Amino acid sequence: MQRYFIDNPITDETTEVTLTGNDHHHISRVMRMTPNQKIYIVGSNHQAAILQITAISEEEVIGEIVDLVTTDVELPVEVILYIGLPKGDKLELIAQKATELGVTAIVPVTTKHAITKWDNKKATKKIARLQKICQAAAEQSHRTVVPYVYDLHSLKDVVERVDDHEHFVVAYEETAKSGENKLLKNMLMEIDMGDSIGAFFGPEGGIHPEEVNQLLNAGDHVKTCSLGPRILRAETAPLYLLSAISYATEL
Amino acid sequence: MQRYFIDNPITDETTEVTLTGNDHHHISRVMRMTPNQKIYIVGSNHQAAILQITAISEEEVIGEIVDLVTTDVELPVEVILYIGLPKGDKLELIAQKATELGVTAIVPVTTKHAITKWDNKKATKKIARLQKICQAAAEQSHRTVVPYVYDLHSLKDVVERVDDHEHFVVAYEETAKSGENKLLKNMLMEIDMGDSIGAFFGPEGGIHPEEVNQLLNAGDHVKTCSLGPRILRAETAPLYLLSAISYATEL
Repeated sequence: MQRYFIDNPITDETTEVTLTGNDHHHISRVMRMTPNQKIYIVGSNHQAAILQITAISEEEVIGEIVDLVTTDVELPVEVILYIGLPKGDKLELIAQKATELGVTAIVPVTTKHAITKWDNKKATKKIARLQKICQAAAEQSHRTVVPYVYDLHSLKDVVERVDDHEHFVVAYEETAKSGENKLLKNMLMEIDMGDSIGAFFGPEGGIHPEEVNQLLNAGDHVKTCSLGPRILRAETAPLYLLSAISYATEL
Repeated sequence: MQRYFIDNPITDETTEVTLTGNDHHHISRVMRMTPNQKIYIVGSNHQAAILQITAISEEEVIGEIVDLVTTDVELPVEVILYIGLPKGDKLELIAQKATELGVTAIVPVTTKHAITKWDNKKATKKIARLQKICQAAAEQSHRTVVPYVYDLHSLKDVVERVDDHEHFVVAYEETAKSGENKLLKNMLMEIDMGDSIGAFFGPEGGIHPEEVNQLLNAGDHVKTCSLGPRILRAETAPLYLLSAISYATEL
């Protein structure tokens, strides 16, 4: 069932809900739904519900809540991905797949080795597009939270954010090459539910050693880690991490 | 360093190696390498080595082995993915990413809900293309094994192969919906190194309940499993499984 995110909370007391704009268009034109059909809606408080459509006008879809949904589909920890701008449309693939895999937010970062550069105008456009991709993927994967895409950060901005997280990992190829493979597992065995994990990934060229040092110096809780012995592409590494976090915390 | 797969084994006694055909073209034309430069080569016995180029002619690249590489980058278990034909070029994405994540082989399967159909001619072409993608991804991710892409299988063929594996999991959305999330972890806690894991994934429309039953009836070691509480797209689910297997067995 398609799901739609609304701007108001959904509580036990909510009975009627009105959808307008894009949602109205999608329900009436794209899905060609009719009264009595049902959709999922998700409130601003992340409460999901089943809405039975009662009326569709030129401007609005009106429905009545027939059931609150109680299954929790969100990761029990918060995961914020900091991504050094990769080439082409790889960040779009990351946004879509990371949303399916439960990411909380994505932060695009300018790094030394990145070939891709965004000026202000391009950044605004790209971020709006990524936010749309996250929204669509959240609807399709039945999430109750739409991941937030932050403005373009510099490495200095990331350093300042390190303390927002209880844990901060830097995926670093040199750590993989050293054969030290236990660091991620050790970290995941120490997390408490509700913790925030920051994770930094470089672009295709990797992270510059100076940048790794800047991050490591930002806090004792910052660790480099490997994601197994194989070399993963820039867009595959964040998906491995999210899958591992899900496996460790949800299964 | 680029790596190339050769048809002969590499042993302590191997001193000189000659590369021809595509590898010669790639080394001399694409990479424009010159004598004294080094490349990785991987023998048919999965032994990797560093080769120093001694001569490049119009037809051949000749080099001498300067070091055997001992790091093991292969998953300690064998993972064969059985994939119900997904739409568009998603199988290509799966082949590339699954190779990075350590897959042993990929088996395309015709299923009831699949929208995509391959006739014999198309199958031959598609499989050759997938095999090429696996080869390129194996080189890039520094693997010592190139995953094998099997011919198109029917569900009946898969049922007959179930006993090739010590463990066989069917990723089934209904299992995810039932909230039974422990089955994959339970299976992975029981595997021994060297075991073979078969894993079946449906196309976008999912697996038909009848097909699930056919697989379940094929052996006591066949289990349905969920990959966490979120709905993953057809091309994301196999990547989640491989990441989880790597996390459970390699980290």
